[in-house]
Amino acid sequence: MSTLPSILTDTARELVKQSSKRKVTLASAESCTGGLVAAAITEIAGSSAVLERGFVTYSNAAKAESLGVPVALIAQHGAVSEEVACAMAEGALFNSHAQIAVSITGIAGPGGGSEHKPVGLVWFGLARRGETTRTERHVFSHLDRHGVREAAALEALRLLTEAVRA
Amino acid sequence: MSTLPSILTDTARELVKQSSKRKVTLASAESCTGGLVAAAITEIAGSSAVLERGFVTYSNAAKAESLGVPVALIAQHGAVSEEVACAMAEGALFNSHAQIAVSITGIAGPGGGSEHKPVGLVWFGLARRGETTRTERHVFSHLDRHGVREAAALEALRLLTEAVRA
Repeated sequence: MSTLPSILTDTARELVKQSSKRKVTLASAESCTGGLVAAAITEIAGSSAVLERGFVTYSNAAKAESLGVPVALIAQHGAVSEEVACAMAEGALFNSHAQIAVSITGIAGPGGGSEHKPVGLVWFGLARRGETTRTERHVFSHLDRHGVREAAALEALRLLTEAVRA
Repeated sequence: MSTLPSILTDTARELVKQSSKRKVTLASAESCTGGLVAAAITEIAGSSAVLERGFVTYSNAAKAESLGVPVALIAQHGAVSEEVACAMAEGALFNSHAQIAVSITGIAGPGGGSEHKPVGLVWFGLARRGETTRTERHVFSHLDRHGVREAAALEALRLLTEAVRA
């Protein structure tokens, strides 16, 4: 029995196991998933040794102030962009003691979509101290708001697991 | 269909509705719930106008650095205490633009309990600009880790709704 779907908690359990084994600590910077990634990780007993902290930066002010994402970058590219995903992940590292950070910024819907940035578009950032930050773009089409959020949270957990194992 | 239990999303829906109507913005500072409160609020469409930001301060360093909770306060009273709950809620206000902030710090288990601080003990803080911060203590006994977290998240959503309506 779990508060979150087993697909999320099972993935989080493996992530916590692998991170604990390697003594790697994590941070999350979430926009459209709004805390789901941190909630999934912390559902697992022993996660306190793994999740150093999480940022739920729903507003642009939060992205700028809590993560240090330049306001001009948001204005130029939009909050849902490769550039902002990259800056969010790096900001999460800079503003924490974690070794690896993931960021998620997307359009969960139902509103907010456009031709070039449809509902379901999500950008991810994966930052690791001393390495170049990676980004990934996914479009979770044909999913509603909770489906997009859940798929995005799952992808973020997978990205973290992959990074921890590397 | 929702990623989170309907008891949480139904409560969050009412909170977002009441907050939107009154143009009140919210912040969360979560320890043992690890992002569940923010995740429940952001599950609701339109919540971007309501949740200004959230802090998942799982480590003591996060409580100190992201929320400004004095390290000495944590050392003196422990992370799960009325004093730290109070400082977390006020820190969430101070480090955001929200009008109302809730904090949650507790022992979700299975480990970490003691005679005076059993598994299931959760302290809540409710801070509002210009008002005295309120605290509440609950012991969610006979619940496992996910049960404690879920009950604590629900209580935090209720505290926020009550504060928004007041």
